[in-house]
Amino acid sequence: MNEQDVLRRIFRESGKQGSDVVIGPGDDMALLRPEGWTFGSPGGGGGGGVLLAVDQVIEGIHFERPAAGLDAIGHKAIARCLSDVAAMAGRPVASLVSAILPPDMTDDDAMVLFDAMRTVGERFHAPIVGGDLAVHRHPTHPLTCSVTVMGAATGLGVVSRFGAKNGDLVCVTGALGGSLDSGRHLSFQPRVGEAIMLRAVLGERLHAMIDLSDGLGLDASRMLEADSGLQIEIDADRLPLHDGIDWRGGVSDGEDYELLCLVEDGELPERLLECPFTPIGRVVARPAADAPAVVVFDGDARHDVASQGWEHRG
Amino acid sequence: MNEQDVLRRIFRESGKQGSDVVIGPGDDMALLRPEGWTFGSPGGGGGGGVLLAVDQVIEGIHFERPAAGLDAIGHKAIARCLSDVAAMAGRPVASLVSAILPPDMTDDDAMVLFDAMRTVGERFHAPIVGGDLAVHRHPTHPLTCSVTVMGAATGLGVVSRFGAKNGDLVCVTGALGGSLDSGRHLSFQPRVGEAIMLRAVLGERLHAMIDLSDGLGLDASRMLEADSGLQIEIDADRLPLHDGIDWRGGVSDGEDYELLCLVEDGELPERLLECPFTPIGRVVARPAADAPAVVVFDGDARHDVASQGWEHRG
Repeated sequence: MNEQDVLRRIFRESGKQGSDVVIGPGDDMALLRPEGWTFGSPGGGGGGGVLLAVDQVIEGIHFERPAAGLDAIGHKAIARCLSDVAAMAGRPVASLVSAILPPDMTDDDAMVLFDAMRTVGERFHAPIVGGDLAVHRHPTHPLTCSVTVMGAATGLGVVSRFGAKNGDLVCVTGALGGSLDSGRHLSFQPRVGEAIMLRAVLGERLHAMIDLSDGLGLDASRMLEADSGLQIEIDADRLPLHDGIDWRGGVSDGEDYELLCLVEDGELPERLLECPFTPIGRVVARPAADAPAVVVFDGDARHDVASQGWEHRG
Repeated sequence: MNEQDVLRRIFRESGKQGSDVVIGPGDDMALLRPEGWTFGSPGGGGGGGVLLAVDQVIEGIHFERPAAGLDAIGHKAIARCLSDVAAMAGRPVASLVSAILPPDMTDDDAMVLFDAMRTVGERFHAPIVGGDLAVHRHPTHPLTCSVTVMGAATGLGVVSRFGAKNGDLVCVTGALGGSLDSGRHLSFQPRVGEAIMLRAVLGERLHAMIDLSDGLGLDASRMLEADSGLQIEIDADRLPLHDGIDWRGGVSDGEDYELLCLVEDGELPERLLECPFTPIGRVVARPAADAPAVVVFDGDARHDVASQGWEHRG
């Protein structure tokens, strides 16, 4: 089973969504504007709404329990969802957690896990407002946490992943690669503040944004709709990489939780808060209908990386 | 581990919630009012906001897979959450689903499950706007679905579970008991329309409401805060029961997904749409600090039923 394919089939069947739904399934978060509601924000401006997304972490797929530690697992469970809020340039409002615990976990273990979730949630102003907890009797049952996060569009408006335009600069926050081996996948800080700053600095020039969860190659390919006629070109030499990582690792290791942005050509900030912001390529017209969606130039070589990444498998 | 106790501990630690949180953990749903937002509704009125709750169904705890059938499981997963919206007298807006599938499920199985969720979601105007799907490799992994539902407070305002007042009538929708044996726990219709109608008919006289998931005794006890000084009295002879069920079954079988309401004394509707609405008792002053929170009068006998119900265990 390919989970992405199944989800696409499921949501294609969904037919027309309700009139409250502005952005439905397929983006980093859904955007809802129920009838009669208004979404003024302290910063002024319109275009607001309720952002919602759900994400789960599962022992044996996203982490190994003894190795990771319960506080790191709790951190990751919430931080992954907050990274979705960042990808929309929203502000976090609240989170909800459902968890299934294996029978060998104690009450104190559960508290360590939830304390870690609560801590990162509160740091990003997304307190846990609801939860459901179950213990499964089967001794091999894995620990699973499903986290829903609600965000609010700021007065600047949200940023979809689907706004690519020919000629856009391709930019990335932070550095890429080696997240799983280094343990960064358990301790990363979601780029919530950086994303709002980007939206403020770049305004309407910020055409599209996604967070890098599965790898630059795969995630970049998800920014181009099938009929876009566009291609994302990445220059291997410009990729900001963690120590000891080559461009292939930067493209395919996954779990970076950095932001990949498509920005109208022009001046760029070099940093957002303490975070580097690096142009790594450009959006161009796809040279042929069957040309790859994402290519990396490495010297004279040209590599199709549209499927380079890590599809989480159990 | 007692999951309810652990959740209480977790949420007690949460300290002050954010300023957006009007109702936090502990009620049927959280209520959020982000700064600057207004919540006008087609029916007019204020007091609105975003309602959120999460709930999960787990193979081996809430259903047995071959017996239940995937379409019934999908129905139950969403309908349980919609019952929470009913308990707040809200209107459903959207739902999000995360699921972990065991390795023996096919793509087509997943589609049957999600089609059932989509169908009940859309029937109640809560389309699925986001999802996360994983397959676990372990052959004994149970099927699990976690569902988050977003609701909107209507212009009439929400109803908390914590509004009990001395002298209130205790009322219940529908009939109770035998849900698990009869299969009703897999096919029930959440009382969304009935709840909004109740709120419209009774107005501010509708002091408190909860949906009956774990059994009348246990759920009624959850409507009284520890320091309320109140007791809920139920008259066994007045309980509306399904065929073949005695009052003990009606109080403790659980999974009824009917609404339990505390209403200021006065005239009551006999029906809501097609659904009976039955007074079954009264809220009184608790005769002693250590008196039970919920009692059933059966002729001359008086039974403590505050712990009568079904705590879902793996």
